[in-house]
Amino acid sequence: MSIIWITCLNIDTFGHCFVVSSRSMASKTQVGFIGLGNMGNPMAKNLLKHGYPVIATDVFPESCKEVQELGAQIVDNPADVADKADRIITMLPSSPNVIDVYTGPNGILKKVKKGSLLIDSSTIDPNVSKEMAAAAEKMGAVFMDAPVSGGVGAASSGKLTFMVGGAEEEFTAAKELLSCMGVNVVYCGQVGTGQAAKICNNMLLAIGMIGTSETMNLGIRLGLDPKLLAKILNMSSGRCWSSDTYNPVPGVMEGVPSGNNYQGGFGTQLMAKDLGLAQNTATNTKTPAPLGSLAHQIYRMMCARGYANKDFSSVFQFLREEEGQQ
Amino acid sequence: MSIIWITCLNIDTFGHCFVVSSRSMASKTQVGFIGLGNMGNPMAKNLLKHGYPVIATDVFPESCKEVQELGAQIVDNPADVADKADRIITMLPSSPNVIDVYTGPNGILKKVKKGSLLIDSSTIDPNVSKEMAAAAEKMGAVFMDAPVSGGVGAASSGKLTFMVGGAEEEFTAAKELLSCMGVNVVYCGQVGTGQAAKICNNMLLAIGMIGTSETMNLGIRLGLDPKLLAKILNMSSGRCWSSDTYNPVPGVMEGVPSGNNYQGGFGTQLMAKDLGLAQNTATNTKTPAPLGSLAHQIYRMMCARGYANKDFSSVFQFLREEEGQQ
Amino acid sequence: MSIIWITCLNIDTFGHCFVVSSRSMASKTQVGFIGLGNMGNPMAKNLLKHGYPVIATDVFPESCKEVQELGAQIVDNPADVADKADRIITMLPSSPNVIDVYTGPNGILKKVKKGSLLIDSSTIDPNVSKEMAAAAEKMGAVFMDAPVSGGVGAASSGKLTFMVGGAEEEFTAAKELLSCMGVNVVYCGQVGTGQAAKICNNMLLAIGMIGTSETMNLGIRLGLDPKLLAKILNMSSGRCWSSDTYNPVPGVMEGVPSGNNYQGGFGTQLMAKDLGLAQNTATNTKTPAPLGSLAHQIYRMMCARGYANKDFSSVFQFLREEEGQQ
Amino acid sequence: MSIIWITCLNIDTFGHCFVVSSRSMASKTQVGFIGLGNMGNPMAKNLLKHGYPVIATDVFPESCKEVQELGAQIVDNPADVADKADRIITMLPSSPNVIDVYTGPNGILKKVKKGSLLIDSSTIDPNVSKEMAAAAEKMGAVFMDAPVSGGVGAASSGKLTFMVGGAEEEFTAAKELLSCMGVNVVYCGQVGTGQAAKICNNMLLAIGMIGTSETMNLGIRLGLDPKLLAKILNMSSGRCWSSDTYNPVPGVMEGVPSGNNYQGGFGTQLMAKDLGLAQNTATNTKTPAPLGSLAHQIYRMMCARGYANKDFSSVFQFLREEEGQQ
Repeated sequence: MSIIWITCLNIDTFGHCFVVSSRSMASKTQVGFIGLGNMGNPMAKNLLKHGYPVIATDVFPESCKEVQELGAQIVDNPADVADKADRIITMLPSSPNVIDVYTGPNGILKKVKKGSLLIDSSTIDPNVSKEMAAAAEKMGAVFMDAPVSGGVGAASSGKLTFMVGGAEEEFTAAKELLSCMGVNVVYCGQVGTGQAAKICNNMLLAIGMIGTSETMNLGIRLGLDPKLLAKILNMSSGRCWSSDTYNPVPGVMEGVPSGNNYQGGFGTQLMAKDLGLAQNTATNTKTPAPLGSLAHQIYRMMCARGYANKDFSSVFQFLREEEGQQ
Repeated sequence: MSIIWITCLNIDTFGHCFVVSSRSMASKTQVGFIGLGNMGNPMAKNLLKHGYPVIATDVFPESCKEVQELGAQIVDNPADVADKADRIITMLPSSPNVIDVYTGPNGILKKVKKGSLLIDSSTIDPNVSKEMAAAAEKMGAVFMDAPVSGGVGAASSGKLTFMVGGAEEEFTAAKELLSCMGVNVVYCGQVGTGQAAKICNNMLLAIGMIGTSETMNLGIRLGLDPKLLAKILNMSSGRCWSSDTYNPVPGVMEGVPSGNNYQGGFGTQLMAKDLGLAQNTATNTKTPAPLGSLAHQIYRMMCARGYANKDFSSVFQFLREEEGQQ
Repeated sequence: MSIIWITCLNIDTFGHCFVVSSRSMASKTQVGFIGLGNMGNPMAKNLLKHGYPVIATDVFPESCKEVQELGAQIVDNPADVADKADRIITMLPSSPNVIDVYTGPNGILKKVKKGSLLIDSSTIDPNVSKEMAAAAEKMGAVFMDAPVSGGVGAASSGKLTFMVGGAEEEFTAAKELLSCMGVNVVYCGQVGTGQAAKICNNMLLAIGMIGTSETMNLGIRLGLDPKLLAKILNMSSGRCWSSDTYNPVPGVMEGVPSGNNYQGGFGTQLMAKDLGLAQNTATNTKTPAPLGSLAHQIYRMMCARGYANKDFSSVFQFLREEEGQQ
Repeated sequence: MSIIWITCLNIDTFGHCFVVSSRSMASKTQVGFIGLGNMGNPMAKNLLKHGYPVIATDVFPESCKEVQELGAQIVDNPADVADKADRIITMLPSSPNVIDVYTGPNGILKKVKKGSLLIDSSTIDPNVSKEMAAAAEKMGAVFMDAPVSGGVGAASSGKLTFMVGGAEEEFTAAKELLSCMGVNVVYCGQVGTGQAAKICNNMLLAIGMIGTSETMNLGIRLGLDPKLLAKILNMSSGRCWSSDTYNPVPGVMEGVPSGNNYQGGFGTQLMAKDLGLAQNTATNTKTPAPLGSLAHQIYRMMCARGYANKDFSSVFQFLREEEGQQ
């Protein structure tokens, strides 16, 4: 496990002196992984499959068992991960968890090595990403945000899409690791833009899904066959991913949650969370987002009415009339 | 002058006796055309180009000049068209015009021949289509609704899409004529479903366009390059026709109205009209359409604020901050 | 039962010649009443109580029993009512019923006497009121729209509010009858403005009710006591009828549906109907109504989710989180 | 200079030992005031008028001139205020300013005396109020949030309403000072509930104002006289503060901004800010607020269209049709 130190010292255009790659890129040295939930678990496994030694931790010790059996070393807390690995990936549920894992009493930054590369794949507020990046920079480390698109299935099969924000000169290093877990690794710009891209995509996705659901429902009420209507939309300007790839109407497509009573897929509660982030960033930047905002409200109402764990395409069902009602 | 072929007499499953094709399909006999506006004019020309003798009229005599010069025979009113042609196409601005042209004092139904085929390509309330069909049936004629997708450009180049509602056994006859003016002629179901399909498509289109505009605006505010954001959306689940084919952000795509100060294209006022139809049909069928309804309100507000004649993608501009404001 | 003919002949400022009062106003002659449902029944009883002989009909004969026992004469259809009474009040569920009762094969206008006063208290589209007025005028009769505010309780106790549209010189005659059934009789302007006032009030009412429900819910989540929050709102600029007179939060006020599991009061389905009228009139007049439109959608979604027959203040419950969900 | 009365030592139910009133309540000792903007300036003057010596500061020195001339002592920064006064009132534009004034390098908490009473009248996120309260508690000081209702006029005339959150046993002390500047001082509950009450009120206010504007606009389009419509609404269930006290339609009422081209009053931009707070707290507590959210979007769009500095009732004008447009 030889650690290769390529000690090139650069001076950037603003006169800052920084170390680009005091960490190994030539051989498969240890990679830290923090957060072994539904998404983190298969992601860490893919790192192991690609031959990377993994040092992992999670607040729930039982979450660590699977990767431990596959050879990962389990340590007590994020600080201990940072003590042993100079490349760390984090995959956490929300902003407060990220803040704690990076800056908490046992956080990464307590023991982070200079020059470490810290990649956060959580979906969180871009402002928190920026704060973490600034805190990491003070310790001589590099922070990048790299949220994912794709669910548990894509995580298992290594087919995630990563949207990456941070210093462009570090992108190659990040891509080396992320490519083990995903098929698309897209550089988006400065720190926080990975989150921004993720949030934007999911906001438009939610709008398209509710819009498709309303439209299909209206068309059915007006006497159109749902399959035919989907076909017409998909050859016309109404076409969108929710109409042609993930149609919310049972029976129109196969292999999507609408055909399986809205089980699996991307939960309404998770969509509501992402729309909450979109809402907050829109509010904070004084950006009008009328449909995105209403989409948020609708998914919030659905959570309040028992749809929290159904796939987000169940909005079609939510908008349909109950039997015996009008 | 028309050669009438009575080729067969059918009895349908409900016991009604009706004549399927007392009108010519074997040779190019006269076709009536009523409504020679921006859309009707190029449509009628395409019929002439395909060798059909055209009998036309319009409430504005000057609108008839062009097709007259190309060989069309101009008559005084719809009744006179019906007196001379047993296949008639109408292309009118709104429901009241259609009601007048069909059932008014000089309307088609005053002199319509038994077995005539009446095709209405106007975009109107599906209920009005049904009423016209019922009125035509009383006179022994067949009414079909066949609204179009595609603007003046598509009308000129004969590349419209027709969504057709009405008796299925008449669809072949309708398609013969409509194919001269469009590349897609889709059978949608009973009378009114052509309108339903058109309305549904445009409602989803409006939702997608506003959603794309909000999303692009938010992403730009968050530091993303607009071209990059469009690229990310278009390879992800946020993808829709408005993001990948008609992007509303100036500079992202070429050859679309956003690159030409929102001139040309499909006017905000026309979109507001179609959304009004969607709104009315949703209300009348007690169908919730929260995003479609809000999209309607936004296009209505835009009309009130000076955007009536700009392309409907100008909603991006409407949502942007004015200089010197916040 | 002497019929007094006061044959004054007037010429109005536009040169039209018309008969103001060929019908009796000096004595209590017969009054027609059509539509004996939940509202019509107690209204007709109040006319009887005030000494007016009533000639009544309803499509459901059993609805006529109560007023018949109290002395009303029951006839077969609206035409027969018009044959016997020159002042007629109609109270019907929706626009199509009104069209049928006035202009149908057995409608009022088949046998209406010249100079008759026809007062419609149904809540319908103002355009239909205008059409009925035009049709009545052709027969020499006067039509006024006079929808009510107040429910079954107010109808029983004679405490309705009537909003009246029509020729101002007929208002006194209308008020004579309406005062038997209500405490406020307000003249609103030309035909249709009674409906307009009713629709406008109910649209703002719905907005205020949903707004109050959201606000109370948010405040409770933020740690405020609901009674205290209501008190603060009611002494501040957030005050509205829904917060100070009909608070939707159980326990805040007594004697309102929120204290009785949202039983009684004004049903969600009826509110959705009125909002549909508001929506249609807004669409038809190209008036933006973003909150009114969203309120409509929310009440429509509630109907689809089992709230159709609960009081419209149950939107508070609809927006609350279900137990065990988030 | 301050006379300190240590009157009692309490131990609360959680075993914390705290001093209730180590600060003077018996005589008019110095009061600190931080933030001398449009609101803070007249508020500080009213404290002076009531005989309180004032120690003040502001980031803009010129803002201090007026109160200095009236006898206030001006110091350099919040820490210096805290050094001299054990009762301090802050009136700042937004959350970041509050964080800086309390916890920044020259913030109040750097030199705060044990037992000091810190009252923040800014309108900010309730979570920030809670954070400030926790930080103050660590220093042995008491923090209360006390946002105001009422504008510059009410601040000048001492007629503000204060909504106060914090320890109930400190309310009397807070009320002593706040009563110099307002007529209503309402205790709302734990820290943050003052903000919550303010945010809730303003959210419902915005909904009522937009709702009233839509409704009045629709009624006018339907032929109703605006004054008559306002009268009808105000005697009916559509009644709200915006319809009966602050009507947005020019000519309906006197002495309100709608009668003065929407000058003065409460700016659209300020309303958008408060709605942003409401939006954020709703998002953070997972509370659906569909109308509040749309109201936020509408005021945000208005800011983008040149209405930022007009009174918030100008939404009536925003929704009206421009001349020559439809």
